[in-house]
Amino acid sequence: MMFRNSSLLRRAVRQVSILRYNSTIAPLDSSRLTIEKTKQPKQKLPNDKLVFGRTFTDHMLEVEWTKENGWAAPKITPYHNLSLDPSTIVFHYAFELFEGMKAYKDKNGDIRTFRGDKNMIRMNKSADRIALPTFNGEELQKLIDQLLLLDKDFVPEGKGYSLYLRPTLIGTTASLGVSTPDKALLYVIASPVGPYYSSGFKPVSLEATDYAVRAWPGGVGDKKLGANYAPCVKPQLEAAQRGFHQNLWLFGEEGFITEVGTMNVFFAFQNEDGTKELVTAPLDGTILEGVTRDSILELCKERLPADEWTISERKYTIHEVEERAKKGQLIEAFGAGTAAVVSPINHIGFRNRDINVPVALGTSGELTAQVAEWIRKIQYGEEEYKNWSRVAK
Amino acid sequence: MMFRNSSLLRRAVRQVSILRYNSTIAPLDSSRLTIEKTKQPKQKLPNDKLVFGRTFTDHMLEVEWTKENGWAAPKITPYHNLSLDPSTIVFHYAFELFEGMKAYKDKNGDIRTFRGDKNMIRMNKSADRIALPTFNGEELQKLIDQLLLLDKDFVPEGKGYSLYLRPTLIGTTASLGVSTPDKALLYVIASPVGPYYSSGFKPVSLEATDYAVRAWPGGVGDKKLGANYAPCVKPQLEAAQRGFHQNLWLFGEEGFITEVGTMNVFFAFQNEDGTKELVTAPLDGTILEGVTRDSILELCKERLPADEWTISERKYTIHEVEERAKKGQLIEAFGAGTAAVVSPINHIGFRNRDINVPVALGTSGELTAQVAEWIRKIQYGEEEYKNWSRVAK
Repeated sequence: MMFRNSSLLRRAVRQVSILRYNSTIAPLDSSRLTIEKTKQPKQKLPNDKLVFGRTFTDHMLEVEWTKENGWAAPKITPYHNLSLDPSTIVFHYAFELFEGMKAYKDKNGDIRTFRGDKNMIRMNKSADRIALPTFNGEELQKLIDQLLLLDKDFVPEGKGYSLYLRPTLIGTTASLGVSTPDKALLYVIASPVGPYYSSGFKPVSLEATDYAVRAWPGGVGDKKLGANYAPCVKPQLEAAQRGFHQNLWLFGEEGFITEVGTMNVFFAFQNEDGTKELVTAPLDGTILEGVTRDSILELCKERLPADEWTISERKYTIHEVEERAKKGQLIEAFGAGTAAVVSPINHIGFRNRDINVPVALGTSGELTAQVAEWIRKIQYGEEEYKNWSRVAK
Repeated sequence: MMFRNSSLLRRAVRQVSILRYNSTIAPLDSSRLTIEKTKQPKQKLPNDKLVFGRTFTDHMLEVEWTKENGWAAPKITPYHNLSLDPSTIVFHYAFELFEGMKAYKDKNGDIRTFRGDKNMIRMNKSADRIALPTFNGEELQKLIDQLLLLDKDFVPEGKGYSLYLRPTLIGTTASLGVSTPDKALLYVIASPVGPYYSSGFKPVSLEATDYAVRAWPGGVGDKKLGANYAPCVKPQLEAAQRGFHQNLWLFGEEGFITEVGTMNVFFAFQNEDGTKELVTAPLDGTILEGVTRDSILELCKERLPADEWTISERKYTIHEVEERAKKGQLIEAFGAGTAAVVSPINHIGFRNRDINVPVALGTSGELTAQVAEWIRKIQYGEEEYKNWSRVAK
């Protein structure tokens, strides 16, 4: 009885606080942006000196949020350190999430981003999952456009070169109690980058990993939370010590293939009847909802001959891949993600057995190269496709 | 063949780097401690104004680590903000872990910590799991002792009052590449606290939760990583909106009981033959290796009559609890953790059914009160038990 009363009381208090909340909180509003330009511009590095995520542009975007007042006025200021109380929840309870996007310079010198609307949707889903504030994605895209225009000269030119954008949202409540954040900071930093793997478009070898599990049903593996990343580094180190570049994450006793390293993964199979299948795991809550993954599925469905290719989002196992390889039915395989875009695979180690993955063109399969080129053309504005490429203005 | 060559090469490079590493890295060394005292001492709050983890003592302990040089000289300085590049890996990939410990003032005015050696072991296991540096636990305990002696006046007096200690280890590499940290910061902050629940020693109601899953075999649920915490807050909010204090985390189709909120959990059952059983889940990789859990198991094995009680670490399900409750065989239940120490349970909601948990003494069961008192006496130095209580000197 005590419990039911207190439940009713709590419900009433919640109603009141929702009402109060809605009456005062401010939405994210790009029109309130203020810009403070740097007085000490950085030197730009030549393309061959760029290391992924190591150097950053002159400016950064920040927007503070409080439960009481909502989103404050956005600020673009010179790139600077964050100063936070050591009790801040981002240091203790992983109240943190991010997005990965890239900006490209087109032949007219305009700066373009690729399907940022998808990143905004995913970022909001991530925020909601760990009780951080959500926001209007178009407003953040407008703010990112302003940052891009200001730091335009940092966007490197050339195939494979881009400006990597890192929208980040962290909980900034200074308290060790584990509860809902009442303060947060949304920020965006930008790093000029070349190809993710220093080796360039070269195939990688994977270790099929079943002793460590990246994600599980009812968990958060489909969200871009910091929490999904640190635990994957030790298995990656261990794979590297055995001579592999990345982990191929398996799930369950069946050995379902889920992702590779920090990317989605695709396999192309030849069927007995001569038709082909491009396969990737379905979005069942354990798979990151990759923008590159989604783009590849859409382009392949539209552009590959339907009488020749089936494009499948379905569960499949390492055993099927091994079996197909044995029969000569494994055509090719590749990872897909924003950082590396498309990453060809030439070898999988599974329980001390080798699965050799064909790379018909020497460094990749034919479809892998085709898909990479389709996406590159849209990203660099050489081809307009739907609303996938957005010019900053 | 290329793969095998590059594997051998990588192995050789690793050997060389291990040799170089060992020849230059410094271990954590408490004798190198430097102390800078505050010039602006904070006002101490009266006991009734203390909120868990909201206010901190005058000083903090910090030790920087680099892959190149190992652990730098430890520093105690006035409590201050951390200043970090916005690309620092702690903000993006949850390279973070912590411990929870408490310091108590005994009747002689000495400051005592409780089984800190167990925290040090667990902290090193957490660090190893996410490729952060490990250290000699006794050295960190000596450093914590120095912090305690300096901030002694912040340790509140009185039953249920203590100084909560938060050893924290974060990755501080400033780079967006997902890889092994080459820089880290170990720090300890301290917060004067009263009882964790503002309601004091009052029973809590739990919602048995199966739609969200806290931990998974092959995951990191047994480590004290930040990654395990943020994902639990939304389910807790949702439980709160339905009138419950905390989640009772279930696992698998069988409905195995694992933990409660951020604590371990114990149930006491009456058997048909009149004997009793105290049950908690086994350390199977999905359960946090709680220091309070371990202490309760040890004390109960030693002090409860063996012909009357069985102390079990075994798998058990919500269905068994429900069944026992129906038969009148559920004696009591409690959560166990450093922050709350022992937290009595009086109600569990499971799929819209109520499981009422007896609280024979009004606010807790008899064993719950007994266990809490056993531990309290050792923590406050009223009773010496093995080496569980350490006097800072």
